[in-house]
Amino acid sequence: MPVPPDATLSDVGEFGLISELVALFTQGEHVLVGPGDDAAVLRIKGGHVVVSTDLMVEGRHFRRDWATAEDVGHRAAAQNLSDINAMGGRAHSLTVGLAAPPDLPAAWALDFARGFAAECALVGASVVGGDLTRASEVVIAVTVIGACTQAPVLRSGARPGEVLALCGRQGWAAGGLAVLGRGFRSPRALVEAYRRPEPPYDAGRTAAEAGATAMIDVSDGLLAEAGHLAADSGVAIDVRSGAFELAEPLQAVGAALGSDPLHLVLGGGDDHALLATFPAGSVPDGWLVVGEVLESGEPGTVTVDGAAYEGPTGWTHF
Amino acid sequence: MPVPPDATLSDVGEFGLISELVALFTQGEHVLVGPGDDAAVLRIKGGHVVVSTDLMVEGRHFRRDWATAEDVGHRAAAQNLSDINAMGGRAHSLTVGLAAPPDLPAAWALDFARGFAAECALVGASVVGGDLTRASEVVIAVTVIGACTQAPVLRSGARPGEVLALCGRQGWAAGGLAVLGRGFRSPRALVEAYRRPEPPYDAGRTAAEAGATAMIDVSDGLLAEAGHLAADSGVAIDVRSGAFELAEPLQAVGAALGSDPLHLVLGGGDDHALLATFPAGSVPDGWLVVGEVLESGEPGTVTVDGAAYEGPTGWTHF
Repeated sequence: MPVPPDATLSDVGEFGLISELVALFTQGEHVLVGPGDDAAVLRIKGGHVVVSTDLMVEGRHFRRDWATAEDVGHRAAAQNLSDINAMGGRAHSLTVGLAAPPDLPAAWALDFARGFAAECALVGASVVGGDLTRASEVVIAVTVIGACTQAPVLRSGARPGEVLALCGRQGWAAGGLAVLGRGFRSPRALVEAYRRPEPPYDAGRTAAEAGATAMIDVSDGLLAEAGHLAADSGVAIDVRSGAFELAEPLQAVGAALGSDPLHLVLGGGDDHALLATFPAGSVPDGWLVVGEVLESGEPGTVTVDGAAYEGPTGWTHF
Repeated sequence: MPVPPDATLSDVGEFGLISELVALFTQGEHVLVGPGDDAAVLRIKGGHVVVSTDLMVEGRHFRRDWATAEDVGHRAAAQNLSDINAMGGRAHSLTVGLAAPPDLPAAWALDFARGFAAECALVGASVVGGDLTRASEVVIAVTVIGACTQAPVLRSGARPGEVLALCGRQGWAAGGLAVLGRGFRSPRALVEAYRRPEPPYDAGRTAAEAGATAMIDVSDGLLAEAGHLAADSGVAIDVRSGAFELAEPLQAVGAALGSDPLHLVLGGGDDHALLATFPAGSVPDGWLVVGEVLESGEPGTVTVDGAAYEGPTGWTHF
């Protein structure tokens, strides 16, 4: 039954909307039973299974006036798929819970699901289950399950003398968020990067196969994530500011906002680039060396060009 | 670092609270990497993996003045573990996301986690990951992963001539909710049943091994769930009202509220009993035969004693 364009969740009803949503989710061959039973049933090979979960709250992690529902769907999927990428794995199955006010347009939920499914399709993953319930604001809860064909790459394996390398755009989404926050819609490339990040989904497995010793996805800021690698590995990391390419849109937004575009690169998240350490000489194609694991130095610390960094370095939720 | 008794989430901060929460979660042997990396890493055998997800929203699925944080933790875990039970499987891993206002007492989050972990321990399952973020109301998002040692029991396998059977308390939680809604705290056994359901965690696998043909957990009401079995199996089901034991607390609450306690049994959910169909003669010990799959009748329909039921039959979310 098609959903009228101006219908709300309340108009369509829980079960009516669920059947429309489920119809949008194509199931892969490993899915024996998709949404609709007490649980989904997957047939998967034994071995290393990787699992991650994330919440997104309206007004905090997204705004409906800054991005379309499809954009939000892409981004919600991307940030979860990226967590599996950062283990050197590949996602195969996701669940998505949507809590929403009864006056949310049903079309928003459907467009969100379309974007979510389209992003999952980029890696061949299936949306195998979900939940839908009433709340006073939109909250999206995603869990992703994936597989690693080799040992997962943790945050804790970096060793002194190794190099730090980055794969993927970095600072673009933060630039987009910065201009949206000031009421602008350009540079368009940055706004689009914020709305629909393009994580390097093949890079995680490639890095694992090349011998990456530690890896993380950059969701909260590059230096903050480097700090997690440093802390969990018990090493000190130095980032070289001159290593980054400051692409033209980043320079443009820096000039427009009167701030150093390097802050966006070092402090920005949301592009879901990967940051990893490798033994020198084994960095795969497509990765940019941006620093090194120091032979000495206080474990858990991150410096920029040998000194403490004074700019913004990420954010916390409370 | 111990959390002061009157501290809020905002006082303790995201990372401070996460480390306290993670310390509460004991990891099973199948968990190679628990919370703290981009994803948890599990080593599991190949075969049928079952996955389910649920959202709970404050004011809708629980009230902080009706149940302790530990109770809510028990219940959030139980309703998800029950979904795996209803497939004939056993849960091994869960993730839990908590969205909460910054003024939520940190002790509430910790007590919730204690209850959640204690319920998971009943089946030997581990809390392998989570997320914590700010929201204007408490939203709890749980995903559960389990394994089936035999073919999962779906909702769709009931056949004419089989019997319908129930395992576990039924109507008790609905009775507890009914009295709480009227400002009472007794009968205490029912209030406790609402706060901490006691799903029959061993019954799902036993039913599967005994040859259950269809199974579901009763979360939204017995007749509503029977309706799902009937619809998905394409059969008509008749429930015999005289089959149910109306325990003393149910009779007491019926008398106090001036309503037929059978309504609680037929319309109530939240006990997470199991409802399943079996070939006649293969119902395992501990299950109560409460109806039959009719040889004829409109597919998808459920009758009570051969007639349409006029009482309450569950609820929807919008």
